[in-house]
Amino acid sequence: MKALTYQGPGKKGWVEKEKPDIQKPTDVIVRITKTTICGTDLHILKGDVPAVTEGRTLGHEGVGVVEEAGAAVRNFKKGDAVLISCITSCGSCPNCKRQLYSHCSDGGWILGHLIDGTQAEYVRIPHGDNSLYPIPEGSDEEALVMLSDIMPTGFEIGVLAGQVKPGDSIAIVGAGPVGMAVLLTAQFYSPGRIIMIDTDGARLEMARQFGATDTLTVGKDDVIASVMDMTNGLGVDVAIEAVGVPATFDTCQKIVSAGGNIANVGVHGTAVELHIEELWIKNINISMGLVNTNTTPMLMKTVQSGKVKPEQLITHRFKLDEIEQAYEVFGNASREKAMKVILAQ
Amino acid sequence: MKALTYQGPGKKGWVEKEKPDIQKPTDVIVRITKTTICGTDLHILKGDVPAVTEGRTLGHEGVGVVEEAGAAVRNFKKGDAVLISCITSCGSCPNCKRQLYSHCSDGGWILGHLIDGTQAEYVRIPHGDNSLYPIPEGSDEEALVMLSDIMPTGFEIGVLAGQVKPGDSIAIVGAGPVGMAVLLTAQFYSPGRIIMIDTDGARLEMARQFGATDTLTVGKDDVIASVMDMTNGLGVDVAIEAVGVPATFDTCQKIVSAGGNIANVGVHGTAVELHIEELWIKNINISMGLVNTNTTPMLMKTVQSGKVKPEQLITHRFKLDEIEQAYEVFGNASREKAMKVILAQ
Repeated sequence: MKALTYQGPGKKGWVEKEKPDIQKPTDVIVRITKTTICGTDLHILKGDVPAVTEGRTLGHEGVGVVEEAGAAVRNFKKGDAVLISCITSCGSCPNCKRQLYSHCSDGGWILGHLIDGTQAEYVRIPHGDNSLYPIPEGSDEEALVMLSDIMPTGFEIGVLAGQVKPGDSIAIVGAGPVGMAVLLTAQFYSPGRIIMIDTDGARLEMARQFGATDTLTVGKDDVIASVMDMTNGLGVDVAIEAVGVPATFDTCQKIVSAGGNIANVGVHGTAVELHIEELWIKNINISMGLVNTNTTPMLMKTVQSGKVKPEQLITHRFKLDEIEQAYEVFGNASREKAMKVILAQ
Repeated sequence: MKALTYQGPGKKGWVEKEKPDIQKPTDVIVRITKTTICGTDLHILKGDVPAVTEGRTLGHEGVGVVEEAGAAVRNFKKGDAVLISCITSCGSCPNCKRQLYSHCSDGGWILGHLIDGTQAEYVRIPHGDNSLYPIPEGSDEEALVMLSDIMPTGFEIGVLAGQVKPGDSIAIVGAGPVGMAVLLTAQFYSPGRIIMIDTDGARLEMARQFGATDTLTVGKDDVIASVMDMTNGLGVDVAIEAVGVPATFDTCQKIVSAGGNIANVGVHGTAVELHIEELWIKNINISMGLVNTNTTPMLMKTVQSGKVKPEQLITHRFKLDEIEQAYEVFGNASREKAMKVILAQ
């Protein structure tokens, strides 16, 4: 089969590779029908994630069809259409039993990281019963690819951890795919004002179409002063960080109101300065984490019922064997006005 | 009347001062029967709280008897025994209506800070209906003085914000009065293991008497390694910071488990380095804040029923006019083996 593999910092290739086999009776082999590229894949390609070794197939998002199910798999059989969760979880370890699937003792984020991922014709999914979701007939598979990672990440780590409530003023710092997932899913809870903050005017225009009530352009608007103006000088109830650098975390510290929440969704590479000498008295809460994907069934229902349309995030479509071209587009997202790309076979 | 006043950095005096008057119809004048000294008062005396001006009467804790109630006061009359909350709150502004009394638009922590406090023969309490609590007959008034500030602070900002649950492993970093209040009130929720961490062996011995299952001495034990040993290498479910310096906050970052909480109770004067590059993936929550005292009625019931005995924290007793001597003892707490002092008139 063909697979997109990491070949050391800055290098990748669409190469011939052996088709995966069942290794444990709980494994499921899935033929990928649709996959996508994540910002994390770009980080890996730069060499920023040393746990990824040369030859590793990238990708942790996708939908497909069961090719083969291990002897212990009860929920899936050959031919079933499935959504692949970016988080692999056994379902029975202490962390899984509290739905902290991200910290499964025999899983977590391993796809396209510690084991071969979804940017291939076939992928092996360990603990298939708990790591795959059945796709109802007639579903929009492109929409569901967004449910492998970015939609639950935005929803769980941004909206739920940030405790967005009806009428709240919220700010989302970063209008990339995950920031957009926060924007879409925050609207389940009817916030009163959603302020989207980014450097990229085209992304902010897209955010307005997706429901942002206000947008602020970093480098053009005085972001802090503008947010304060919009909130009677109080700051926002929830500030959601969706970039992963010190400057955006700092913005969140400066715009959160007393009694408010900072929900950090971004993946950070360095420490940040926490201004606890100012914040201790403000009764705030700071949350952070890796997605558990425990809300995937709920999100599937919202897609089915039309409450959310994650397919709006898809700007480019390619055939799976055009994946190197897709990386070129996604890696220059601003120039190409790309948000999410779909790769289909 | 006599009052203990701040007279500039490093200076205080037990001086003659005018007895307070009703200024607004919602005011209550209370004759102090018992008060105490807080670590915050020591900070103020050092000159660390510039909002405190010379001549200000210190103190934000105490019990007393109503001397005079303003025309609009409905809940209290002359002669009623009352507990004074360290937080003054109107009860009707937007923050009060969500029980965020600490950020009342006409109150918050103002006693012994922005208005004259409780270390005096009489004190004026604004918004008396919401800022005072009736003391049931037969109560232990010394125990109730601990409910003005330290008990609700430890309970709300440590135990409740940290979400202590039955069976949890928790660590309390700092065995001062507020750390001890965390220790006492955490036991309402039956944690499985309570690890108390401090530099002072005498305080740790006291913590063991109050219910700590384990103690670690900073500078003698390898704190991080020991906590990991005690928790199967996972870290604690809840790490509670009760000192207010970068080193103790850092300890909390290092000992919290995936899916756990850091509850910051300490008052900080400088920024801290938040290791978000390690913590983002751990699904943790960091809370911080000023006490709301919205749990004061609940805590009064626990004192009445004998579920908690805050009078255990009292190590020294003085007459109110011996307050300068009491400051000398409390300001050298380690040498004097002092925890909380009571001043009575």
